[in-house]
Amino acid sequence: MAIDTGDTTWMLVATGLVFLMTPALGFFESGLIRLKNSLSVIMQTITGMALLSTMWFIVGFTLVFGPDVSGVIGDLSNFFYENVPFSEAMDIAPTIPGVTFATYQMMFAVITPLLITGAFAERVRWSGFILFVILWSLIVYYPLAHWIWGGGWLAQLGVYDFAGGIVIHVSAGMASLACALVLGRRKGYGPEIMVPHNLPLAAIGAMLLWLGWFGFNAGSALASGQLAASAFLATQIGAATCALVWVLISWARTGKPTVSAVINGGISGLAGITPAAGFITGQSAFFLGIVLGLASYYGIVLIKERLKIDDALDVSSVHGITGITGALWIGLFATSAINSAGPDGLFYGNPMQLPIQAFGIGVGAVLAFVGTVVVLKIIQYTVGLRVSEEEEDLGLDISYHQEVAYENK
Amino acid sequence: MAIDTGDTTWMLVATGLVFLMTPALGFFESGLIRLKNSLSVIMQTITGMALLSTMWFIVGFTLVFGPDVSGVIGDLSNFFYENVPFSEAMDIAPTIPGVTFATYQMMFAVITPLLITGAFAERVRWSGFILFVILWSLIVYYPLAHWIWGGGWLAQLGVYDFAGGIVIHVSAGMASLACALVLGRRKGYGPEIMVPHNLPLAAIGAMLLWLGWFGFNAGSALASGQLAASAFLATQIGAATCALVWVLISWARTGKPTVSAVINGGISGLAGITPAAGFITGQSAFFLGIVLGLASYYGIVLIKERLKIDDALDVSSVHGITGITGALWIGLFATSAINSAGPDGLFYGNPMQLPIQAFGIGVGAVLAFVGTVVVLKIIQYTVGLRVSEEEEDLGLDISYHQEVAYENK
Amino acid sequence: MAIDTGDTTWMLVATGLVFLMTPALGFFESGLIRLKNSLSVIMQTITGMALLSTMWFIVGFTLVFGPDVSGVIGDLSNFFYENVPFSEAMDIAPTIPGVTFATYQMMFAVITPLLITGAFAERVRWSGFILFVILWSLIVYYPLAHWIWGGGWLAQLGVYDFAGGIVIHVSAGMASLACALVLGRRKGYGPEIMVPHNLPLAAIGAMLLWLGWFGFNAGSALASGQLAASAFLATQIGAATCALVWVLISWARTGKPTVSAVINGGISGLAGITPAAGFITGQSAFFLGIVLGLASYYGIVLIKERLKIDDALDVSSVHGITGITGALWIGLFATSAINSAGPDGLFYGNPMQLPIQAFGIGVGAVLAFVGTVVVLKIIQYTVGLRVSEEEEDLGLDISYHQEVAYENK
Repeated sequence: MAIDTGDTTWMLVATGLVFLMTPALGFFESGLIRLKNSLSVIMQTITGMALLSTMWFIVGFTLVFGPDVSGVIGDLSNFFYENVPFSEAMDIAPTIPGVTFATYQMMFAVITPLLITGAFAERVRWSGFILFVILWSLIVYYPLAHWIWGGGWLAQLGVYDFAGGIVIHVSAGMASLACALVLGRRKGYGPEIMVPHNLPLAAIGAMLLWLGWFGFNAGSALASGQLAASAFLATQIGAATCALVWVLISWARTGKPTVSAVINGGISGLAGITPAAGFITGQSAFFLGIVLGLASYYGIVLIKERLKIDDALDVSSVHGITGITGALWIGLFATSAINSAGPDGLFYGNPMQLPIQAFGIGVGAVLAFVGTVVVLKIIQYTVGLRVSEEEEDLGLDISYHQEVAYENK
Repeated sequence: MAIDTGDTTWMLVATGLVFLMTPALGFFESGLIRLKNSLSVIMQTITGMALLSTMWFIVGFTLVFGPDVSGVIGDLSNFFYENVPFSEAMDIAPTIPGVTFATYQMMFAVITPLLITGAFAERVRWSGFILFVILWSLIVYYPLAHWIWGGGWLAQLGVYDFAGGIVIHVSAGMASLACALVLGRRKGYGPEIMVPHNLPLAAIGAMLLWLGWFGFNAGSALASGQLAASAFLATQIGAATCALVWVLISWARTGKPTVSAVINGGISGLAGITPAAGFITGQSAFFLGIVLGLASYYGIVLIKERLKIDDALDVSSVHGITGITGALWIGLFATSAINSAGPDGLFYGNPMQLPIQAFGIGVGAVLAFVGTVVVLKIIQYTVGLRVSEEEEDLGLDISYHQEVAYENK
Repeated sequence: MAIDTGDTTWMLVATGLVFLMTPALGFFESGLIRLKNSLSVIMQTITGMALLSTMWFIVGFTLVFGPDVSGVIGDLSNFFYENVPFSEAMDIAPTIPGVTFATYQMMFAVITPLLITGAFAERVRWSGFILFVILWSLIVYYPLAHWIWGGGWLAQLGVYDFAGGIVIHVSAGMASLACALVLGRRKGYGPEIMVPHNLPLAAIGAMLLWLGWFGFNAGSALASGQLAASAFLATQIGAATCALVWVLISWARTGKPTVSAVINGGISGLAGITPAAGFITGQSAFFLGIVLGLASYYGIVLIKERLKIDDALDVSSVHGITGITGALWIGLFATSAINSAGPDGLFYGNPMQLPIQAFGIGVGAVLAFVGTVVVLKIIQYTVGLRVSEEEEDLGLDISYHQEVAYENK
């Protein structure tokens, strides 16, 4: 097929929107944590964006989308974007320039490792962070993305993941759990350290994330038109009902629904709808949003309140539990009426999709958990992982960046 | 006609842009009010966005755009988005998927009731707010939108409203006047309580609103191409000249032009150009912007300073007076040279359009004012409308959400 | 050629993105300067946007893109946007409505003079600022843009500038140097007055600038498709590697890499890639980013630390030195394989492009420097340029706008 200007425009826009999500994530996280560490996550997300863009350009793209080697990894044919076509399309996205597909995918490779900053916030060394995103990309993200999106063995088995429920949210969620367990709790763990220092900033970040997610999910159609339109609607409805569930539960539990609740609820819905957005109807997204709200809210109650695991910003629930839920939902409610290239689920006559999805989720979760532990151990024995007690008391902004967020001079 | 990828891409983008306007409105309002209530409007706009998206999905779309019943309301054929086509277009927007039209319109149904939060800011109960947006949508917005955009009786009479001057800005403006009158003034009403707590935040909100408005107005062409291009230009010029008028008046009056003035001037211009953007030339938009600047600035002097009506953020002028002005401007300066599907105005040989526009404005204004009073009375006699004096002193953030915007811990 | 909906959509989006850059610039600058002047730059950028949009509509467009008079300036055929086609294309952008091209270019004419606010921040009178942007547009921007983009004598000589390295960044950078020299240093010049008052705000501004830059550079293809795709990639890679170089240098020099460094590094890369984005490969952009990082970082060390020239936010390096570097890079590494309408550079067999580029840069630099000095002298002898010592101590926010950024009431 020829390059289509409407499709190309949509994918350029979607690339910009997914780009925006990474700094938005930094603002969201920054607003939700304590003042003394509020710059550190902004620094990590912006520097991480520059670093991971560069890595993707050099080696990431070819490992994920280069010619497949035994279902395991791409070869080096596209090292340094060599042979990525500018004026022609690739088979995987036949109506847009190859370089646009490659750059769109760059933004996914950028944000995924950085989602985990929410889990290890307030207690990881700067050099440890840098090493983490490099190694984690090489050991977890590039292989997993190849297995599911690059024509690897999970794709061959029939695992589906529209915009990254398994590749992105399950992997980041399980990595977050591993980080929280290996790192241990922050000093003084308890409600008194969970003080959002700037909720308008967190809300700005959350709303720019929500905006960007339209590019993330509807862009994953890799073209404009019917499928993008359908994924866009599913995204909005799934996120809206999930956010409402969070507001209602927190209203019922405390009588005082919070901004923290509505924005975390929205992000949970967005993460959970991601794998299914291009395979299900709007009505199905409505119900999935409700399920996601319940699963992610009570997931936090379980992990943070009951098990006292210090995943600082609840990435394991907001992304992990929701990613699992959304990826399983495909096995139940996917319909090829929405996406003729997609699967049918149990309720559309195909009972086999559910176990296949569960297997894919399991593989992604194990790879992410084990891979993360390996990466953390390497860091512990080389540049060091956790900050000293003095640095933690002082805050990472001063300790590692010699800057403070706000000055009254 | 077939689905066009360029048109579809424009409408996906425009939907995202109008989506962004609702949280942007929250940031704009939050920055302009006192610290102790600064989260409450963010909470209202974000939760309202989730709630009104869901309502639109369930019942709003079908009441507005479902098959017409006697010119009054749509029937329930599209309840729960049933039968909204994914892969085909609707007659009203013949080159984009039906679901994209429906989701674009969702974002209008989301922001309109939430504009009124600016009027009743700092003194409405949370449960009263929730009930307000639900009832006001059912009683005012859905009917009025059907009458003008859904093929109802005002459309049949020949009332034109390109992107929502009557449906959105007149209705929200008159509702705001009703709210201010029914609720009464805030405690300590006077200049000393009108203290913007964070002007950079207000400016971020205002500028994201301005950006989003390109989707609002140029998206209302429902396709890319000539009409969208023309509406985009009119939007920018009308807003720019209106903002300049505000700066010049405030400079002349006080010697110290303010950020508050330039951002309120910009929003006034954007609201006022909205109904006319797709019917007038750029040159006409230039002059309309000047008229809008004078009308909205002195409207506030009249309503707030002279009449001492406490419309907290001047929605009745910034949206109401401007919406009226822009909708009348169609009757004077519309030209079918810009939009062959639109009307000609008085100066283009059609003297009848002006009284028709005035009639449409009058109907919208009366419906909105009376409907709002009814809604407020229902709330007063059920969940309660105005906060207690203690809650007002303490601020809504603590009273209703148990959160504060900024923490120094 | 006929209007293409995909191309038109891309240019509408790109126009919106470049629009966003001007307020984003204000937030970036505001966050990086002292609290007492933090509103003044927001006021200047937003009011400047309204004013320069209006000027462009009246007279700017026709002077730059109206029919050429002797290679020097456009005539007045398009005064007040007269004869700018709505439903047809112009030759310069043959697949989009003429009015969309004109409005896209409006946003460039808006941001360029406002870049210079970063140089004269914290010490220029409000009326001086207003006169500055008016005169500077007439004397520097409109002629230079005509010479290079409007078919003027530099274009005829074969000078290339894809998205504004010479027209925008060299001109603003040299103007900034002139401003810093004519105005003199701020009171108490030294590290203690260079206190970013709100780094999250600066980061929000920087990241919205980065986002907008995709519209700036990839939009300069004036259509969707291959060239836009290629320019988009070059933009991201050039900016990413430049940002990384800044982080690495500041890490090596101080042990504490800062948010200030990564965002200034990103902006430096974006400015420097601008002239070359549509003429070079992604691999070339990778290396250009590294060169830009070194040049801009050490440019600041030279200008600010060694020469003690008080260009408040380093516009002369971040935009000027980078603009020069990127415009020269065309002479070295441009390839018509990327852009068949563009030149080849030295390493692609055309040794003459380098001296032509150098000549174009020289002309732009001299015009901007001399023109700026003339403008500043006119201001000094009319409305006054520099604030009084008392006003500088008090801050511009109170002195000229009677507002403060944040209130705790």
